[in-house]
Amino acid sequence: MTVSIARTTIIGTGLIGGSLAAAGRKAGALRRVVGVGRGRPNLETALAAGLVDEIEQDPVAAVGQADLVVLAAPVNACVEILERIAGALPPDAIVTDVGSVKAPLCRRAEQLGLAERFVGGHPMAGGVGTGAALADAELFRERVVVITPTRATRREAIDLVEGLWAAVGARIVEMDAERHDFLVAASSHLPQMVVYALAAALCDDPDAEEIAELSGSGMRDTTRLALSDADMWAAIAALNRPALVARMEQFQRTWQLLQDAVAAGDEQRLRSLIRAAQHFKRRLSK
Amino acid sequence: MTVSIARTTIIGTGLIGGSLAAAGRKAGALRRVVGVGRGRPNLETALAAGLVDEIEQDPVAAVGQADLVVLAAPVNACVEILERIAGALPPDAIVTDVGSVKAPLCRRAEQLGLAERFVGGHPMAGGVGTGAALADAELFRERVVVITPTRATRREAIDLVEGLWAAVGARIVEMDAERHDFLVAASSHLPQMVVYALAAALCDDPDAEEIAELSGSGMRDTTRLALSDADMWAAIAALNRPALVARMEQFQRTWQLLQDAVAAGDEQRLRSLIRAAQHFKRRLSK
Repeated sequence: MTVSIARTTIIGTGLIGGSLAAAGRKAGALRRVVGVGRGRPNLETALAAGLVDEIEQDPVAAVGQADLVVLAAPVNACVEILERIAGALPPDAIVTDVGSVKAPLCRRAEQLGLAERFVGGHPMAGGVGTGAALADAELFRERVVVITPTRATRREAIDLVEGLWAAVGARIVEMDAERHDFLVAASSHLPQMVVYALAAALCDDPDAEEIAELSGSGMRDTTRLALSDADMWAAIAALNRPALVARMEQFQRTWQLLQDAVAAGDEQRLRSLIRAAQHFKRRLSK
Repeated sequence: MTVSIARTTIIGTGLIGGSLAAAGRKAGALRRVVGVGRGRPNLETALAAGLVDEIEQDPVAAVGQADLVVLAAPVNACVEILERIAGALPPDAIVTDVGSVKAPLCRRAEQLGLAERFVGGHPMAGGVGTGAALADAELFRERVVVITPTRATRREAIDLVEGLWAAVGARIVEMDAERHDFLVAASSHLPQMVVYALAAALCDDPDAEEIAELSGSGMRDTTRLALSDADMWAAIAALNRPALVARMEQFQRTWQLLQDAVAAGDEQRLRSLIRAAQHFKRRLSK
């Protein structure tokens, strides 16, 4: 479906919101774009870079004419923003978001009477940096975006949002919000926690400096995510707590098996765990 | 110190042995090089690529004229190779290695009467692939190489081996073998085990395929090491068991703190662990 959306309001013109603006305009899917943010300097960066046509600090004022509203603010701020703008939305405006946890916002949208026109979205793209200055029109190309409609979302609302993501080169996977949260707890939130624990475990080591000096590309790649934004990850851990705790327990069970195999010198058990790891890794490379 | 070594025998012309041959010849530090290996095809690759001047399958026959012998076979094979060649070495030949665990080989060298001329070595370089076909004369540039003399190694033996590594662009750090093994258990062996556990934990998940599909660059980078050679890592885990078990317990304690913080919704504790992780990660980037 080819989409061309007359007026879009993007609330949060950071890396994801800014990149979606850039990509959507480049693809001709977004015509006029209003960028909303709390910080004036980042908004001005977005405007100067041509990501948006107009900037606005008040989300309520910014949605009054919108055909599509994209919530791209920090994930823990979106519920409150949705509550504030709900009464100001034009009757036909479609609302979507880009957050890493979907159920809390989808459920709140239903409670606010927006079930028919709310479409959750989560692009599997990003980076350790933030801000409009890093916006990249190619950020979503070949990336998966998960679309999570509510139980009552109208098909044309889903088609519009999926049409926008298709236009910017993303590959669409549709599922319900709870399923999304359960799966990304494993695919995204668990590796983040594992990396934080690995790097934190070495921080207070009396030999931390020498350990860092002897670290090669293995340690560097394994801990790339350690610089990911603390605010974002504290929010994600809070919003997706039950699923994340279950995934952390899942990791813990395998870690214990591995630790036991190494401690016991049980090479057969160790090799079988390594084979399992390689099997999963090969799925990723496909 | 500028070195120029007339006859070098490299036992094991895989990624590391082959790259050291290529780099040492390019730098003029290695004149004539004999490559030794069990597999004929890999040896012929090394010869055809000009990494070595001569190839030989019998290590005992290959060391009779050597000024320097480099053990670059799989780490668990090196003790046995050293035992076999000890009696055939010329009286002045210097022996070094490139293995990831240093104490077992250094101690065995002492027992074999080679203490004065054995110099352990461990370049912090490598990759997930193996074989002479991947040899790269630039592999060691700017990388740390740890040099572990025995308690009795003569200074000129240390200088020769350090001179070779300096010639190929590596940065030299000298310490004793036990200290090396204790530190790399944290800097290299622990991240490898963490990655294996993460990927293995997801392998048997009923939703493994969807989890893989929803995995982005975070999961991909975090698990890059999961394809590292199983034989090599089973050997390293066995050779460095006490240090590795201690490091795994160190990780386990931090993991438990993190899991508790997430489960309890203790944002302050979570943020403090994230800050520690970021602090360690910043040391790496320096």
